[in-house]
Amino acid sequence: MESERWLEPLPARLQQQFQFLLEVDRLKTVIRGSRITDGSRKENTAEHSWHLALFASTLAEYAIGPIQIDRVVQMLLIHDIVEIDAGDTPLFDDTTPTTQAKLEQVAAERLFGLLPQDQAEYFQALWTEFEAAQTPDAKFGKAVDRLQPILLNHIVGGGTWTDYEVDEDKERQMTHRIADGSPTLWAAAEHVFADAVRCGWLLPAR
Amino acid sequence: MESERWLEPLPARLQQQFQFLLEVDRLKTVIRGSRITDGSRKENTAEHSWHLALFASTLAEYAIGPIQIDRVVQMLLIHDIVEIDAGDTPLFDDTTPTTQAKLEQVAAERLFGLLPQDQAEYFQALWTEFEAAQTPDAKFGKAVDRLQPILLNHIVGGGTWTDYEVDEDKERQMTHRIADGSPTLWAAAEHVFADAVRCGWLLPAR
Repeated sequence: MESERWLEPLPARLQQQFQFLLEVDRLKTVIRGSRITDGSRKENTAEHSWHLALFASTLAEYAIGPIQIDRVVQMLLIHDIVEIDAGDTPLFDDTTPTTQAKLEQVAAERLFGLLPQDQAEYFQALWTEFEAAQTPDAKFGKAVDRLQPILLNHIVGGGTWTDYEVDEDKERQMTHRIADGSPTLWAAAEHVFADAVRCGWLLPAR
Repeated sequence: MESERWLEPLPARLQQQFQFLLEVDRLKTVIRGSRITDGSRKENTAEHSWHLALFASTLAEYAIGPIQIDRVVQMLLIHDIVEIDAGDTPLFDDTTPTTQAKLEQVAAERLFGLLPQDQAEYFQALWTEFEAAQTPDAKFGKAVDRLQPILLNHIVGGGTWTDYEVDEDKERQMTHRIADGSPTLWAAAEHVFADAVRCGWLLPAR
């Protein structure tokens, strides 16, 4: 984003911060595959990120080990910002993962790079940690990122499961990382899958 | 919300938490007065809450005194959840403040009351603290809640200022609490007002 003329009289650091905050507003226009609970429309990535932050805050007690919930929340608030440039890749889409990863890396550098350097480095490191999914905080963040669409799919009666004709094996394969962050939440997810198969929204394992 | 049959086999505490998380999804359907930056539509309260959490995280250094940014973020994530029952009241609307406050109190009790008691009390206390706007954390949270719509109005060329034919005095009156949380951000807001008057989006003081 080029510098906004009207911001120019502000201190340089504050200009950069405002430009970042106005640019990330575009995440409100990135549309995901999941529907919101009333089924009226698909979810956008900004409101999804808000929902995940609340998921993490409410379900923190089920993390597999000690986590810093404020770091998990920060990760979830920024984890999908790269979709402004790179778009959302539905879980069941065929886009080559390495191509998408490269696009997202470039997007992270551009978007976090709008900020003053210290903040750019802080957010970039947090985003990289989340993507790598190796630390307890990142594992728990990834777990709730996989859990939320499962609950949305069930409440709308199919959602992306019926859109993509997903079977239980495929779904378990795409979401089993929930177990890395929280065995309790994975057990809950498995219960939801079983119920979804019974209801005909998720195909039985082939 | 009545208990969902499909959640019944889960532990009671987890059922309550999932019911809360599914119920608050409805915040995605509460529409505010402000437009998003591309001007294509009005903002919903869920994505607004996400945006405010990022505003607070990015601008924390400008708080008037020491704050705990993780508490401010938590407040902002839940501060408008009551709008699910009580609706959004635009800043320039004529709804009697005491009527709205009562509706929001009842809404807070119902919505946070979906959670296990310890979490219900935690969120209710956080929400009450935010509403009272007396602590440094709540003052800073309120400041960014007032600041964000100012930037959105400017970037879309008027927004709620032109919708409600607002003049600079009225706008300053409705947003001056920014100064209680951050004199630096208030100075920035005053600059934006001056530019908006120059552009004809905000009426000059009468």
